[in-house]
Amino acid sequence: MASTTVARKQTGRTWEEREDEVRVGGEFPFDAGIEEGLDPADWEEFRRLAHRMVDRMVDFQRDARKARAWQPVSEGAEEFFVGAAPRAGVGAERVYEEFERYVLPYPTGTFHPRFWGWVGGTGTGLGMMADLLAAGLNSTAGQFNDSAARVERQVLDWMKEALGFPQEASGILTSGGSVANLVGLAVGRDAIAGYDVTQEGLSAGGEQLRLYASEQVHSSVVKSAQLLGLGRAGVRLLPVDDHFRLRMDALAAAVAADRRRGVRPFAVVGNAGTVNTGAVDDLTALADFAAEQGLWFHIDGAFGALAALSPKLRPLVLGLERADSIAFDFHKWLYVNYEAGCVLVRDRAAHRRSFTAPADYLDVFPRGTAAQPDPTDSRGPQLSRGFKALKVWMTLRGYGLDTFGRMVDQNVAQARYLSRRIDETPDLERACPVMLNVVCFRFAPAGVTPARLDALNKEILMRLQERGIAVPSSTRLHGDFVIRVAITNQRSRREDFDTLVDAVVRIGNEILAET
Amino acid sequence: MASTTVARKQTGRTWEEREDEVRVGGEFPFDAGIEEGLDPADWEEFRRLAHRMVDRMVDFQRDARKARAWQPVSEGAEEFFVGAAPRAGVGAERVYEEFERYVLPYPTGTFHPRFWGWVGGTGTGLGMMADLLAAGLNSTAGQFNDSAARVERQVLDWMKEALGFPQEASGILTSGGSVANLVGLAVGRDAIAGYDVTQEGLSAGGEQLRLYASEQVHSSVVKSAQLLGLGRAGVRLLPVDDHFRLRMDALAAAVAADRRRGVRPFAVVGNAGTVNTGAVDDLTALADFAAEQGLWFHIDGAFGALAALSPKLRPLVLGLERADSIAFDFHKWLYVNYEAGCVLVRDRAAHRRSFTAPADYLDVFPRGTAAQPDPTDSRGPQLSRGFKALKVWMTLRGYGLDTFGRMVDQNVAQARYLSRRIDETPDLERACPVMLNVVCFRFAPAGVTPARLDALNKEILMRLQERGIAVPSSTRLHGDFVIRVAITNQRSRREDFDTLVDAVVRIGNEILAET
Repeated sequence: MASTTVARKQTGRTWEEREDEVRVGGEFPFDAGIEEGLDPADWEEFRRLAHRMVDRMVDFQRDARKARAWQPVSEGAEEFFVGAAPRAGVGAERVYEEFERYVLPYPTGTFHPRFWGWVGGTGTGLGMMADLLAAGLNSTAGQFNDSAARVERQVLDWMKEALGFPQEASGILTSGGSVANLVGLAVGRDAIAGYDVTQEGLSAGGEQLRLYASEQVHSSVVKSAQLLGLGRAGVRLLPVDDHFRLRMDALAAAVAADRRRGVRPFAVVGNAGTVNTGAVDDLTALADFAAEQGLWFHIDGAFGALAALSPKLRPLVLGLERADSIAFDFHKWLYVNYEAGCVLVRDRAAHRRSFTAPADYLDVFPRGTAAQPDPTDSRGPQLSRGFKALKVWMTLRGYGLDTFGRMVDQNVAQARYLSRRIDETPDLERACPVMLNVVCFRFAPAGVTPARLDALNKEILMRLQERGIAVPSSTRLHGDFVIRVAITNQRSRREDFDTLVDAVVRIGNEILAET
Repeated sequence: MASTTVARKQTGRTWEEREDEVRVGGEFPFDAGIEEGLDPADWEEFRRLAHRMVDRMVDFQRDARKARAWQPVSEGAEEFFVGAAPRAGVGAERVYEEFERYVLPYPTGTFHPRFWGWVGGTGTGLGMMADLLAAGLNSTAGQFNDSAARVERQVLDWMKEALGFPQEASGILTSGGSVANLVGLAVGRDAIAGYDVTQEGLSAGGEQLRLYASEQVHSSVVKSAQLLGLGRAGVRLLPVDDHFRLRMDALAAAVAADRRRGVRPFAVVGNAGTVNTGAVDDLTALADFAAEQGLWFHIDGAFGALAALSPKLRPLVLGLERADSIAFDFHKWLYVNYEAGCVLVRDRAAHRRSFTAPADYLDVFPRGTAAQPDPTDSRGPQLSRGFKALKVWMTLRGYGLDTFGRMVDQNVAQARYLSRRIDETPDLERACPVMLNVVCFRFAPAGVTPARLDALNKEILMRLQERGIAVPSSTRLHGDFVIRVAITNQRSRREDFDTLVDAVVRIGNEILAET
């Protein structure tokens, strides 16, 4: 047989010869005597270590405000994380001590009251403990007849209710907004293409499928298009108005022009809170347009969708409830510990169709471990999924949705407070309207040339972080580098924004004085 | 403007009017007085609760052997998980008590010494605690200049070393094997298509791209093809030999025939441990074939790749080190708590190309939080990623790779022990050769018609689970329903397989007696 010859070329032995070598004449040592395991020899010793860890992490949460917002990884730690794979184990106690020494001092910083970068959520102590419980149970979610499936289903039901989706809608917990966008757009592609994409593939269609979104849309939408085989050419990014909202006239013109040209429009993506400025597209107008044009209406509501929890802010995201699919995160504006996102899909059958693949080893059972409460778990790219639903469930149930409505309000109020502080500070310049929880601004004193401002503000930002004062991030608006403060932080207080404003001005002047 | 008219249709108010309503004359209440947060009012009370949780979960681990392997969710719990979203919170203590009552008693069962279903790993106490530490830090992984990025990089370096990949190779931690397969195949698609798929999309290519795998390949490979826009038609499933290994002659013939027909072959997927029987394809032959034909060589090594950790078993998976990409799980044969998988990709640049999408808010910084040790985190479908690398790192470093080599050996030895027990038991029939850790068999006493055997064995399996004795799963081999035991369990001991064999025969006879 050809394969045998080929294998011999590489190894000098056939696969069968190697197999024989492993079998040792069929007598793999199954009578080797004492078996071992990974459980601790002394559970009480392990218990003491576990309690030490809990004490340390409860202290860490409690003392968040006293900590630096960020600090660079030390040289010692850099060196520690280079080296060959450990053949022998160092044991639980030593590896925990290494964690304390080399990992714990250098977190991303999301836990801190003045972390406002990249729309990172804070986490809570309760969410931290929920992850311990989930990891201890070691349940997988959704696939089996167990409590994890019930917990996840209830989280989805609650979120449908909170966002105005019908209870018959489908959904799944994902790693975060990026995969939630991927799932929503995959279902949209397959539902609207006009032929069986999951069977035939996109090369069978011949025409380019295209989705439409504002140029402010999150990069994960473009990345999803790449992954889905639509390419970046399958995404049309459209201009925005002064408030960074998708221009409906540009959308209508682009779709009409594409149809004339033989490109097939299949979806429009609305932003409920853009990553750059927190802008919310006109979702009711988009819903109407999608309905008229027969397009899939997907909403990226990574954080902004949660504005629906606030009675005050809900009018801003009206139209959310009319989406075909909506993506959002629990680990942003619901402050759930990383990672947990979600996608809701109105059409249950369409959702299943895109993710169902035949498998012999997934039979249907009326009873037992595989008697799933949901007929199939084919709702996303994963098969096994960790029990992240538990921390979401415990967080939502422990605090209640009204609390999150108030916290969302509070973060928006803080954004407006910061906005006012910026407007009142002579050398600061606000770079966009503040509607939700994102504030972009820069230090722009008179006399500094526009060409210098980018480098100046970048340096300010790095010093803010390096000194552990605060962690905003940055973006570019109309080409300009601006400092971006995205407030999805349950530990922030008004005085933290005073600290930021003062530090930006102080560091800005310090840099100017250096040169 | 058209959009205004459209919006008015739905709501009677324009978007701008709604916006004004929210602004309340620009005076969103930022002076509302006292701010709140989600931290506990009394940290010491919270600490006591956290210690209670740890004690409970350490007991749970310690007493795993005394527990039922599985039990159906009670009616009370079913009812508990139905109901409206909680507006007011119940507090941390009560939600924990609800966990104890309604969640804890009904896990999937992976923690149990006799859980052998769906290749589910056991988890460890150390992994459980690592998830607490990761959730407390609330770091995201890979994207920032922090310890999480170093820990993940080192885990990847260690796995490259363990599986024989060069240190320059790329990789990323994923949710599990399914997404790892998706990533590997996406990179393969984009690298081999012959035109810029990420830019143009698949409709620009015109020809069908196709990958090849044995009919025993995991369903996630087919699902990946659907998601990637290749369709199920983009996957050619090929026949296997008596040992359920891909037939190289069938592969060569299929690729040649497709080329003649104008279909473009782009990848071949090798199995290192099939989900059904643990079969390992001839990976060196596949590596040669892929090289000759210019195909991407992806390996699905979900559990089987870890056989490389055992000096005894390594010859079986020879060829692993020649893959272009390899997918595997930490939460299977490395017993890491759910969820954690990995993909390694030999060509670093190709890996990045498939997942890079432009983003204004991801600028490059020489210093500070965004000064990433890796130039870009565009290595998978996620952007934010939880710090799952920590539990992998603590597990590998705590126990050492040699320990996992021995544990892998032990599970294989147990599979062979079970295989021998089956062969020695008159009414049991083994359904496939046992090479690694998967054993398929059925209860097939003389006198029972072939038509009855499927239903009989399905009933045996459900009773095994319902009575909490053991959790094997099932599959179909040559159309027959068989009980499948996949041993990736660090708590199993030889006597557990005696228990299984005895129970299958006893329950089988009990069912026969009933009818």
